Amino acid sequence: MKVVVDIYGGDNAPHEIIAGCVDAMRKYKGFDIVMAGKSEQIKTLLKDYPIDDYSRIEICDAQEVISNDEVPTTAIRNKKNSSLVVALEKTKSDKDCIGMVSAGSTGAVLTGAFLKIGRIKGIQRPALAPVLPTIKGGSAVLIDCGANVDCKANMLVQFALMGNAYAKTMLNIENLLSNGTEDKKGNELTHEAFTLLKQTDLNFVGNMEAREIISGDYDVIVCDGFWGNIALKSLEGAFLSLMSLIKAEVMSSLKTKIAGSMLKKNFKNIAQKMDYNKNGGAPFLGVEKIVIKSHGSSRAESICGSIMQVVNMHKNNLIVNLKNELPNTEQAE
Amino acid sequence: MKVVVDIYGGDNAPHEIIAGCVDAMRKYKGFDIVMAGKSEQIKTLLKDYPIDDYSRIEICDAQEVISNDEVPTTAIRNKKNSSLVVALEKTKSDKDCIGMVSAGSTGAVLTGAFLKIGRIKGIQRPALAPVLPTIKGGSAVLIDCGANVDCKANMLVQFALMGNAYAKTMLNIENLLSNGTEDKKGNELTHEAFTLLKQTDLNFVGNMEAREIISGDYDVIVCDGFWGNIALKSLEGAFLSLMSLIKAEVMSSLKTKIAGSMLKKNFKNIAQKMDYNKNGGAPFLGVEKIVIKSHGSSRAESICGSIMQVVNMHKNNLIVNLKNELPNTEQAE
Repeated sequence: MKVVVDIYGGDNAPHEIIAGCVDAMRKYKGFDIVMAGKSEQIKTLLKDYPIDDYSRIEICDAQEVISNDEVPTTAIRNKKNSSLVVALEKTKSDKDCIGMVSAGSTGAVLTGAFLKIGRIKGIQRPALAPVLPTIKGGSAVLIDCGANVDCKANMLVQFALMGNAYAKTMLNIENLLSNGTEDKKGNELTHEAFTLLKQTDLNFVGNMEAREIISGDYDVIVCDGFWGNIALKSLEGAFLSLMSLIKAEVMSSLKTKIAGSMLKKNFKNIAQKMDYNKNGGAPFLGVEKIVIKSHGSSRAESICGSIMQVVNMHKNNLIVNLKNELPNTEQAE
Repeated sequence: MKVVVDIYGGDNAPHEIIAGCVDAMRKYKGFDIVMAGKSEQIKTLLKDYPIDDYSRIEICDAQEVISNDEVPTTAIRNKKNSSLVVALEKTKSDKDCIGMVSAGSTGAVLTGAFLKIGRIKGIQRPALAPVLPTIKGGSAVLIDCGANVDCKANMLVQFALMGNAYAKTMLNIENLLSNGTEDKKGNELTHEAFTLLKQTDLNFVGNMEAREIISGDYDVIVCDGFWGNIALKSLEGAFLSLMSLIKAEVMSSLKTKIAGSMLKKNFKNIAQKMDYNKNGGAPFLGVEKIVIKSHGSSRAESICGSIMQVVNMHKNNLIVNLKNELPNTEQAE
């Protein structure tokens, strides 16, 4: 059982990515890691991260790197020797590879997974499905979160089915489900998706407002990738902004500094609770193998988490369950 | 110079709405208030809010109320004797009325303003343009924020022109401008709008990410009303959630309670800084008179602020400036 990792994807590559791989291998047994990237440099860097059993590491040489600025389709087509493309090809062709992790360009990872690994039969468009922490301490799946723009209603229905299967398999959540929209009225797409979702066997609870995304009242939230991205980024921006405002207030006088130090652990609790990247990345649901897109700013902890996501999703038969949970796919098309 | 107020719109109507009207009249001179609603009840309630000069108040009787649950177009058409419709008709027909304020159903206020007051010539779709506080202490105009879904690219261009005129007139902001989108790629609509915006005389700085909305780096942010609503509600949800998490942490022990009380003023500073409703409501730009949509949960302070927004926008010739700033309207269509 092997997990492929794109060693040169992400802002902190290759150091933090390698450190994350080694962390995962140190903590857990039962899987090997395939490292895709510049083999000589990887070998040198590995000297800084000793592990017991180097036979658990396989290196696939790849001399090129795809940057965030490149047009995804062009990069995937032209940079055949990039760490990402080599990782994708390896994941596809080696039957022992259960999935892969990349913190590289979101567009390139998703396009690459679509083109190189391929879709599950019947799925029109795979979707990115991060799991967000809710204020009640639970989780909510937001699908799609940026892979697909200008979606059609039947695509939203497939997102709902995949999100539901994912939540059931990985989060032990029963299928409470909603369609992300501003209010009862929504737009043309939500109207159409609403009607289609009502016809499924899903526990579709209707429309909801973006304000409620992290309320904990919804388990799976379905939306066009463009909206999902706006929602996710707005939430992220609000948290970062508020945290920086709090910091500024705390630093404003001696009294507030003292109070701030008394609350340090509590602020940390909150930051950790709301950090949706700490336990790994977002699965790209609907492709034939497990693909985890880690945040571009991922450090070792998050990469380690992403690798373990791949392992756990495999152990829980995510791909099989996804396929089984899509009986209505043909009808929905 | 009169400002019309829908006394029966909003969660806290009629008490807080009347209190807000009286506050505004106590604090500022030079305008009168037209109160639309149940005249007998208004007269009774006014006894609780004494002012020097009752001749500044004109009451337009309206016995019906439009609720949030009603379909806007139907409600506007059928409830001719509702406080909202009476307020709209008065605003339209009385040349001394410079504008109006309502905290009622957003859909009904916007639909009503569109149908009853009418658009500025050349404007396809008026748009809701709240001013958001930024973490740098400045302001950002988010247009459209829920009035129009399924927008066309030329509508976004008009939003940009209106948002720009508004920012210049009311906020002394130079026309730095952007098109709300997830990233460089965006969707079909942002592609098309991008091309059109580049052709205008506006200082269009290109696309931006939702994460940056309140960063203070953008003055006018243009988007489809559906996305704008998602962004606004996500921001709101994130702030409310984070504030409730902080509250829970502060209440968790004696030590944290003490620290919390030491930071009470600071938390209040932040809450006030980020409260985009405290100074009034959101203007509905593109109709022939000034229309302010106050938040449904508005209390007296916010209603008072909304009334003063109408007065100040009138003094600053907002409608005239909006008309002057739309030279490209015909071409854009």
